[in-house]
Amino acid sequence: MKNKDDQYLKNYNKEAKKIDDRLSLLLEKHEPKSLYEPCSYILQSGGKHLRAYLVLLSTKAVGGKFAQSYNAALSVEILHNFTLVHDDIMDSAEKRRGRDTLHIKYDISTAILAGDSLIAVAYKNLLKDCVINTTQILNTFNESVIEICEGQSLDKEFEVRSDVAIDEYKNMIYKKTSALIQMCCSIGAQLGNGTKKDIKSLENYGKNLGLAFQLKDDLLDIIGDVKDFGKNVGGDLVEGKKTFLFLKALELATDDDKNNLLKVVKNKGIKKNEINKYKKIYEKLNVLEITNNEINKYTNLAIKSINNLENTEVKENFIWLANYLINRNK
Amino acid sequence: MKNKDDQYLKNYNKEAKKIDDRLSLLLEKHEPKSLYEPCSYILQSGGKHLRAYLVLLSTKAVGGKFAQSYNAALSVEILHNFTLVHDDIMDSAEKRRGRDTLHIKYDISTAILAGDSLIAVAYKNLLKDCVINTTQILNTFNESVIEICEGQSLDKEFEVRSDVAIDEYKNMIYKKTSALIQMCCSIGAQLGNGTKKDIKSLENYGKNLGLAFQLKDDLLDIIGDVKDFGKNVGGDLVEGKKTFLFLKALELATDDDKNNLLKVVKNKGIKKNEINKYKKIYEKLNVLEITNNEINKYTNLAIKSINNLENTEVKENFIWLANYLINRNK
Repeated sequence: MKNKDDQYLKNYNKEAKKIDDRLSLLLEKHEPKSLYEPCSYILQSGGKHLRAYLVLLSTKAVGGKFAQSYNAALSVEILHNFTLVHDDIMDSAEKRRGRDTLHIKYDISTAILAGDSLIAVAYKNLLKDCVINTTQILNTFNESVIEICEGQSLDKEFEVRSDVAIDEYKNMIYKKTSALIQMCCSIGAQLGNGTKKDIKSLENYGKNLGLAFQLKDDLLDIIGDVKDFGKNVGGDLVEGKKTFLFLKALELATDDDKNNLLKVVKNKGIKKNEINKYKKIYEKLNVLEITNNEINKYTNLAIKSINNLENTEVKENFIWLANYLINRNK
Repeated sequence: MKNKDDQYLKNYNKEAKKIDDRLSLLLEKHEPKSLYEPCSYILQSGGKHLRAYLVLLSTKAVGGKFAQSYNAALSVEILHNFTLVHDDIMDSAEKRRGRDTLHIKYDISTAILAGDSLIAVAYKNLLKDCVINTTQILNTFNESVIEICEGQSLDKEFEVRSDVAIDEYKNMIYKKTSALIQMCCSIGAQLGNGTKKDIKSLENYGKNLGLAFQLKDDLLDIIGDVKDFGKNVGGDLVEGKKTFLFLKALELATDDDKNNLLKVVKNKGIKKNEINKYKKIYEKLNVLEITNNEINKYTNLAIKSINNLENTEVKENFIWLANYLINRNK
């Protein structure tokens, strides 16, 4: 099993590297430079390229070849980068993947416009692979763009609301993160001309994987190692973000703990030297374990979703990927 | 002829009103409100709806019916509104169609996100009408989105450059304004299943109409009546915009006039009480007449482009529209 896992990881890294190279070159030398240099800057910033890999793997899962969805795989990464550029403006984020964010490197106008054009470049690349089911594939892609915008809007809304329910939070992360991952699986399967049943299975895989992925992100923020995670541990608490961990703690806490948590909401965050105090509250309320259980729940749901896939080899690859993602430490 | 013109105007106004009503209701009551209220705010801000009308008329020109491209007509207006929202942020514009711009009414984050989602809503509506030639139609639509972004990028670039050539300016307004108008004619004709020749004719009509339209806008800025035009006369000079009039004047001027014009570039604009002085320079250099000749040239090219259309009734309607637009005073 270990050998097989190594092989899956090697294959993933190999494909991710190829995608990375293609993205880096995609808009180089395009004119006007004032638009395409900033676009290239973000496309050259690396990343896991998980979304692209899911497109390719989903095409293979239904009997297709990577070549049938290679441009679509680029397309979802381009779309993902658009969301990062615009979200970073809205969040006033200064760093992304260890480099200046686009609006810091250039300016806000340039970042808005680069993001806008990345949307169109994403559609352009997707269209290159559309030879069958075009309207359906485009609708799937497009709906996910709408959901991403809705998710980001809810995220901003929650920042200023004090009464966010856990179900509302899950709906938000579904839209903001999961909908795109679900779409990757869906269009991969559609481009490979998969059956309705297989498309649905892969969509459910992506949906649940996306939820597990985001909850793991929430968890890593508090238990991650700073050198692995690349962000400051406890950053969500400092920024007063209403993550799953925070909302669950707020639900379970009483007395002093409750008051301390409510202070985070009221003050829109905490000081860095208070992180440990809050981590201890989380531990006391068992919130870390509860979150881990949620992550496992959604990972298992993802794996169960693809049970009926005929291609055993790709099915095992998907199972490996789900486990790999929840066991990551960055 | 007068009676027929009245009838064309009446038809245009009737369709524009219908489009306006549909746009106003389109996203009302959609959730989350934090996203769709701002979207509705801009979609309810009126406008000429020229772009929607061109889609409908182009479908009719090739033998189709308005119903075949009605959602596409909404789509191009939604796309146009996206560009207005994001451009207004980049230009720090405070008013649009007599109301607060979106980022003033709400905030910059909300305006970025509303613009983003309008792009996706535009694709969504276009897809509703795509039953044939979907990939081709989507590519046409998509290319125009890319050109609009390139045009806006050039426009921002020209603000800080002192050596803009007239041909560069024309290329910029082609991308920023004309490409969208050309696309409207193209997708209208494609949705109506027009011949390649008719599609090409209508694209050329749109392209030249768009150039005439933008040059007329440049001209109205200096000769328009403030109460008709809705903007302050001479605003382009105050903001130091390198319009066709300005670049042509710079090309023709000598001595004192040249120095005065170069001051506009150097100081990135003029004071309001200097507008009349510059208007006199324009008059002296015959720039107003030269611009009028350019507008007539492109209008005539537009009209000539559709000479081979078989449907005489629609052809006359297109000719009326071109003349109506260059004779407008707002």
